[in-house]
Amino acid sequence: MVRILTKANVAELLNMADALEYVEEAYKQLTLGNAFVPQRIAITDPAPGLTLVMPGIIGGEMSALATKIVSVYKKNPEKYNIPTVLAKIMIQDINTGDIVGIMDGSLITAMRTGAATGVSVKYLARKDSTTMSIYSAGVQARKQVSGVYYGLNEKLERCKVFDPNKDTSESFKKEIEGELGIEVEITNSGDELLTNSDIIVAATTSTTPIFAGEKVSEGVHISSIGAHAPDARELDSTTIKRASLLTAGLKEACLAEAGDYIIPINEGIISKDNVISIGNIITGKISSRATDTEITVFKSVGISAQDVAVGKLVYDRALKEGIGQDIDF
Amino acid sequence: MVRILTKANVAELLNMADALEYVEEAYKQLTLGNAFVPQRIAITDPAPGLTLVMPGIIGGEMSALATKIVSVYKKNPEKYNIPTVLAKIMIQDINTGDIVGIMDGSLITAMRTGAATGVSVKYLARKDSTTMSIYSAGVQARKQVSGVYYGLNEKLERCKVFDPNKDTSESFKKEIEGELGIEVEITNSGDELLTNSDIIVAATTSTTPIFAGEKVSEGVHISSIGAHAPDARELDSTTIKRASLLTAGLKEACLAEAGDYIIPINEGIISKDNVISIGNIITGKISSRATDTEITVFKSVGISAQDVAVGKLVYDRALKEGIGQDIDF
Repeated sequence: MVRILTKANVAELLNMADALEYVEEAYKQLTLGNAFVPQRIAITDPAPGLTLVMPGIIGGEMSALATKIVSVYKKNPEKYNIPTVLAKIMIQDINTGDIVGIMDGSLITAMRTGAATGVSVKYLARKDSTTMSIYSAGVQARKQVSGVYYGLNEKLERCKVFDPNKDTSESFKKEIEGELGIEVEITNSGDELLTNSDIIVAATTSTTPIFAGEKVSEGVHISSIGAHAPDARELDSTTIKRASLLTAGLKEACLAEAGDYIIPINEGIISKDNVISIGNIITGKISSRATDTEITVFKSVGISAQDVAVGKLVYDRALKEGIGQDIDF
Repeated sequence: MVRILTKANVAELLNMADALEYVEEAYKQLTLGNAFVPQRIAITDPAPGLTLVMPGIIGGEMSALATKIVSVYKKNPEKYNIPTVLAKIMIQDINTGDIVGIMDGSLITAMRTGAATGVSVKYLARKDSTTMSIYSAGVQARKQVSGVYYGLNEKLERCKVFDPNKDTSESFKKEIEGELGIEVEITNSGDELLTNSDIIVAATTSTTPIFAGEKVSEGVHISSIGAHAPDARELDSTTIKRASLLTAGLKEACLAEAGDYIIPINEGIISKDNVISIGNIITGKISSRATDTEITVFKSVGISAQDVAVGKLVYDRALKEGIGQDIDF
């Protein structure tokens, strides 16, 4: 039997607090050597878009084996009136290999990316943080705010947002204020996001730095989840140079795909050894910030372990709560 | 909408003659540079089995994009009373990236492997071939005979089989005689398969050579679809040395995974240049056998393009014939 879970089923079963816990556990098991995340396969040519095939396995108590197939076809909204990013996750029984669950993966993709930032906030931001800023007001950005909110144990009070699209900003404000009960302030420029915010999130589609590192305040935590190609980045070399901790969802993935780290490494500003997987902070192998003036950075390019963990959470809960439909293949 | 196709749906929609045609087209498009088959991802540790994640894309008229997830868990039959090999194929819309079809992949895996041998027989066996021998009487072996049958344009008259398990051999004989109307002869040894047969198929789980190359008759065509690891092989170095044509489903895949070629290359008996993708024969870039005394070899380790092609065939036909059920994810 294969449990089929639609987007509505997934939305009913998943909340950010739990997603954050599962992504944290995935990062932890990766550092403990109990998880395997092969380099994802990318298929581009000759299609008009990109497909990423991302299998992964997590041992320990979670015991999860799954593959996400996610596609990014930029002309979808205009040409076919469907989203650019589409995804499905196939859950396998870890004892038999059999595929036992198939679910929509769009919401999970956004949620697990928000959860990654949430985990980084939990471990790296100043303990007295109550404010954040975010570059972009898009779909991904909204789950980022939710991630920060739960990463701060619901102590987030205000979020500043900048997006070139005013309508998107307004809808962001309405949604976030309604959902989280925090104050949202729309700014007129990106630079306004850099003052009076404890946490800065970069969630843009930019391939070049979105702010000047000199303008970053002391003590902030920065999470960048946008750019994910070796020659693309949201953070400039000054930001990287000023930071006391350079963390990654998975170091190996960021050193292969994240220009935010690759470019400063190639410039000789930092070395590969300066970048660490956040699992090392979670397990206590490496200490988090020691002072309230340090700048900390988290970069995530997205790894299958996040999808595997959150997918397993949704699947297990669906079985328990009797949600979804079964297909006998 | 996602069209869901069960094993029974697939069985209803797929026949060997069509599978052979689609696998031939996949090999052709690969050689023409219109297909992309990334190296498959293998996940083993820490699970008690192997999962292979195999995406691929084929351009040209076929325009197919799909991923097969296949698992091989050897304890399944004994511990859970389910098959060792389980598979599903996810078909994407090549224009949007959206997953539009999900089907059982077990039968397709066996059929496309039989079809690969069938294509090799069509292009490499002597034109007057009417007899074959096969090592192993298992599930894969049965589809191999079917592949040879259609590769010879239904001119196959007799099949000799050897399998250590007598019951398996008897059930093989009954099934093949019933399905194809040819004569099946069960032998008492592997060596008896080497005489009076135009085509030899090796479909075993052996990791060491299953016959001595000196005993192979002139003029035969040999297809090996068993061993698929660099240190495992069904064919010995003498067989490889005696052959005039050494073909592969995909040269790069065989040079990475097939001990049948890798070991003799490492021994200096042949060079990498001696191995060619069968697409070169199909497109006429390289000539097939010139005489009736040459020995020809085909080795396949299985590549996603075969699954992508046959999966697309099944999906298209399901839509046309209104078979399967639709799920709105």
